[in-house]
Amino acid sequence: MDASGLSRYLPLVIYPRGRPDDAVYVGHRTEVHDQEVRPLWVPRVQAASSGTVDAVELAVGHLRRLGLRASRVGVESAFLPADADAALRAALPDSTVADAIEVLERLRARKSPEELALLRAASEGVVESMVAVISSHGAGSTKRELAEALRREETNRGLVFEYCLITAGSSHNRAPSDQRWRQGEVLSLDSGASYQGYVGDLARMAVLGEPDAELEDLLAEVDAIQRAAMAPIAAGTIGSEIYAAANPLVDRSTFRKWLHFVAHGMGLVSHEAPRLTSNGPVPYRGVDADRPLESRMVLSIETTMLHPTRGFIKLEDAVAVTDNGFEIFGGGARGWNTGMSLR
Amino acid sequence: MDASGLSRYLPLVIYPRGRPDDAVYVGHRTEVHDQEVRPLWVPRVQAASSGTVDAVELAVGHLRRLGLRASRVGVESAFLPADADAALRAALPDSTVADAIEVLERLRARKSPEELALLRAASEGVVESMVAVISSHGAGSTKRELAEALRREETNRGLVFEYCLITAGSSHNRAPSDQRWRQGEVLSLDSGASYQGYVGDLARMAVLGEPDAELEDLLAEVDAIQRAAMAPIAAGTIGSEIYAAANPLVDRSTFRKWLHFVAHGMGLVSHEAPRLTSNGPVPYRGVDADRPLESRMVLSIETTMLHPTRGFIKLEDAVAVTDNGFEIFGGGARGWNTGMSLR
Repeated sequence: MDASGLSRYLPLVIYPRGRPDDAVYVGHRTEVHDQEVRPLWVPRVQAASSGTVDAVELAVGHLRRLGLRASRVGVESAFLPADADAALRAALPDSTVADAIEVLERLRARKSPEELALLRAASEGVVESMVAVISSHGAGSTKRELAEALRREETNRGLVFEYCLITAGSSHNRAPSDQRWRQGEVLSLDSGASYQGYVGDLARMAVLGEPDAELEDLLAEVDAIQRAAMAPIAAGTIGSEIYAAANPLVDRSTFRKWLHFVAHGMGLVSHEAPRLTSNGPVPYRGVDADRPLESRMVLSIETTMLHPTRGFIKLEDAVAVTDNGFEIFGGGARGWNTGMSLR
Repeated sequence: MDASGLSRYLPLVIYPRGRPDDAVYVGHRTEVHDQEVRPLWVPRVQAASSGTVDAVELAVGHLRRLGLRASRVGVESAFLPADADAALRAALPDSTVADAIEVLERLRARKSPEELALLRAASEGVVESMVAVISSHGAGSTKRELAEALRREETNRGLVFEYCLITAGSSHNRAPSDQRWRQGEVLSLDSGASYQGYVGDLARMAVLGEPDAELEDLLAEVDAIQRAAMAPIAAGTIGSEIYAAANPLVDRSTFRKWLHFVAHGMGLVSHEAPRLTSNGPVPYRGVDADRPLESRMVLSIETTMLHPTRGFIKLEDAVAVTDNGFEIFGGGARGWNTGMSLR
């Protein structure tokens, strides 16, 4: 739970550079039991805080004990509350406090085999949940009911639901609402859910009834761009080659003006390193476009078509980089999934 | 979803004192669709941010447009990220930025009828979920399985699971684990789950098999303290009267040294105003102990017995203050609930 009394849960890890044996975890006082059951890797754990400022005070005590004075302290500024940051700076007047989020993200870019297994499980769970929702819903279901059903299906598979973006019919509005899915209409589902902290984020398509020839063509176009983008993926491939493979298909497409392609890293966060994209407002954009992909990076590949009459048509896939190519996580159900028929 | 790229989701509301018609909401760019479906009460919404710092920059633009210069700005310091706080202070060098969390909490202490309905639904959903879990589990279920089942049951009822503290047998360890619930053993469930943002937080007891006379006595003792604590609750009652009613029963009890009683306000946060407690590390403790309760405040009443051989025995109830007394939210299943029998 995030909010707690007049403050907030603030777990802190102290990692003195080059001294992993001196790492400390400062957790909430209710975490004592959890640490008995499932201890963290850090050699020292103090589960004793109630809020943000007292957590920092405990952490500063460890810094002093460790003799870490007048040093540079890297923090994640977007995740450190203002009152905790002020307490940290006041307690360490001779130190420099700087944002370390780019450094930390870089360290997370290549996943361990255990992390890859979690990302695979998360991705498969999201796709299985979508298939379960689509096959058990039909004409008249609202977008809100469908999104709520997806939340249940993901929860039933051990995932933590994060969000569901959903469209029905020709509308491009992706918020859950009272809009009903009707016979013949397209449905798009784009959902993020995490498994033990690792994100599965995929998009799949459905239609109520049989897809007509035009729908088959539109999704085939999206799928072709996805497959073209994946084709060059392997350790050593320069990041921009993914865009270089996808862009010509986008540019040649009849539906070019409605198409949008993007590729980015993912893992603990739905958008993280490698940073491949050259558009969008992310401040860190494109830094990996000219660097080689590395094995055990995980990428999200997304092609979206904003069709003015047939609706929102999108595939999003999770792809792990391997030494010799790639592995798709949760690669099922990429065609037109069909909703429950009228009885 | 909280983390996003190298930053974090940061929704901001600007409320110029005494000028509700000038209130502004700055949201994430993906919220455009949600605002079409379900508009916020604020007259102006700008769903355009990607992270923390650009959200503040958008907000500062609104402050300038509204002519709010060199003023006092109240923020929630534990919830404003350090980088957003720094950006705000840099953009408003002539203003004072101060923590307003106590003021805002005070405004939330009395609930509207709509908020009370959400708190009732959350509380009932938690209790119904506990009953469903207990009646469908029995000998050999692990605490981890039971906690996960509770997460599913709460999700199925439209709640957002927050946490499950769980004990089995004589252990007082409340973390989910591989420990199995065995025949004859006590099980305690204490769970928080929210419904549309409002917290249900209750604790109920179960036993595998029929409770023996000692268990009946122990839970009756806990229940008697709960009922004594509730008895004086009504608008106008001085907050400390709740403790004054419960404490003599605790002090007279044979089990006194194992008993712990606490009462506190709840609502959007599991511990909020009124602040009735006189113990514990909450910085704001006790400020309401000498003030009258007000109708539509909601209280959490908790009695815990840490019995050395029979285990962790606790009831936690949610109680709304009314003009003439109180209303219990989710008041069912307060006795010994029995797990699924061996077949």
